Amino acid sequence: MRLATIRLGDTLTAARIDGDRAILVQARDAVDAYLRRDRLKDVSEIDALSAHYARVSPAPAHILCIGLNYRSHIQELGRAAPAYPTLFAKFPSTLTGPRDQITLPRISDRIEGEAELAIIVGRHLHRASLDEAQDGIAGYTVANDMSLRDWQHRTSEALQGKIFDRSTPLGPMLVTPDELDDARDLTVTFTVDGVEWQRGSTADLLFTPAELVAYCSTFTSLEPGDVILTGTPGKTAAAGTTLAPGQRLVTAIEGIGATINLTGADPLPDNRGTWQERTHP
Amino acid sequence: MRLATIRLGDTLTAARIDGDRAILVQARDAVDAYLRRDRLKDVSEIDALSAHYARVSPAPAHILCIGLNYRSHIQELGRAAPAYPTLFAKFPSTLTGPRDQITLPRISDRIEGEAELAIIVGRHLHRASLDEAQDGIAGYTVANDMSLRDWQHRTSEALQGKIFDRSTPLGPMLVTPDELDDARDLTVTFTVDGVEWQRGSTADLLFTPAELVAYCSTFTSLEPGDVILTGTPGKTAAAGTTLAPGQRLVTAIEGIGATINLTGADPLPDNRGTWQERTHP
Repeated sequence: MRLATIRLGDTLTAARIDGDRAILVQARDAVDAYLRRDRLKDVSEIDALSAHYARVSPAPAHILCIGLNYRSHIQELGRAAPAYPTLFAKFPSTLTGPRDQITLPRISDRIEGEAELAIIVGRHLHRASLDEAQDGIAGYTVANDMSLRDWQHRTSEALQGKIFDRSTPLGPMLVTPDELDDARDLTVTFTVDGVEWQRGSTADLLFTPAELVAYCSTFTSLEPGDVILTGTPGKTAAAGTTLAPGQRLVTAIEGIGATINLTGADPLPDNRGTWQERTHP
Repeated sequence: MRLATIRLGDTLTAARIDGDRAILVQARDAVDAYLRRDRLKDVSEIDALSAHYARVSPAPAHILCIGLNYRSHIQELGRAAPAYPTLFAKFPSTLTGPRDQITLPRISDRIEGEAELAIIVGRHLHRASLDEAQDGIAGYTVANDMSLRDWQHRTSEALQGKIFDRSTPLGPMLVTPDELDDARDLTVTFTVDGVEWQRGSTADLLFTPAELVAYCSTFTSLEPGDVILTGTPGKTAAAGTTLAPGQRLVTAIEGIGATINLTGADPLPDNRGTWQERTHP
């Protein structure tokens, strides 16, 4: 089953995607439709290609993101495989739709994208076993963990480089695990203006989706609609140094689809100096 | 002005606190009452001492927490003063009421508390100047940044040790800055069963509340009700090694009040081994 959250004017509704048809159903969004999947009522039908897709999970209680998780990327960096997932958070305000423009904040000199397989949680999970975690995955979608590298590396905690407003596209579809062989071997790519910046396969993931869900559920209870970003592959030789306004970012995962976002210029002038200059002349 | 969020059965309402009187007002919670402060309608009155206090900000869009921020604590650890605040996140599910029991998860061998002055944001702030940040502070309250130290130190990111369910008490009151001389010099203490584990003064803060608000608003827009935890003082010689069920935690800040929480035993057996044993024998 392929489910999406569609914008109809100012409201959201859910749709079941069947080829080029988006069948609107009686549910608030894709997560709600997943929870009602055995009794979904069709309402009407629109063209799936021209639908206005919103972020697939509109209001997750938790968004958890893993750092290094692709074996080849870990080896490339000369690091040992970590014993535990390294995790940071995002906020719902960090998410954006899979076709929305992403405004690049002027405060950063080094903005990068990270193509990621995203897990959408489908039930309440507290200290889940691996089997419970596997069963608790509603499905998968595409995300881009957009990052301000200079801010990310200012301190030991990445958070301040990871949560700029409406920066992380999520969607366009929640695809249930049965359609993707549990996401065991899907190609993940990130292209900028048609040039490939990243390529990897989920077969290369050190911590699998079920392991990540089980692990996270140990220290915080997970809820339906929660999002876990599974990490990003390494960069290709063609990858540039920073993203700039006016670019076209395509983050694609085989069997799921792609987020396609144009980058926009920040309308505000750079005023980050106010606080820093006073404290650190 | 002193505002609280009060539980009445299954619903919340706001109250203005005047000595031992809690005057219920027409507002959903303390943050809503702050936003309507010029036109608050009184509804009825209850005893402030026996009121059921909820977390003062029920649904913050952002909860940001700073690591090391007390100068004496930084010196004690032999570290240089950081150039930037180190920040991690919590989720609304991490918060709890100022009188609620805190269930200590069995997965940790080292659970500690951290007494903290908490800032409640009072308006939308995006790249705020210091003056705008100062004006954008609705008020202050008390928090305890309860931490699973073993999980916190598993990786470079603290998050997984900082977000266990309903662990961070927040309240009982939002006190506006005019009543506290902008929180410039308030004594902060944490006692466990009457023994003092922490003592400090907000005069010792490296990054002031206005600086923290301005800084955070640079990389993510802040909203009314957002919570910023300002860091914790060092430990006293009497501080124990881990918290245990059945203890009484009192986190107090001069001029604001105290959170008073009993610790409870985890009803679940320890099943954390499931995932780890398989992956890391």
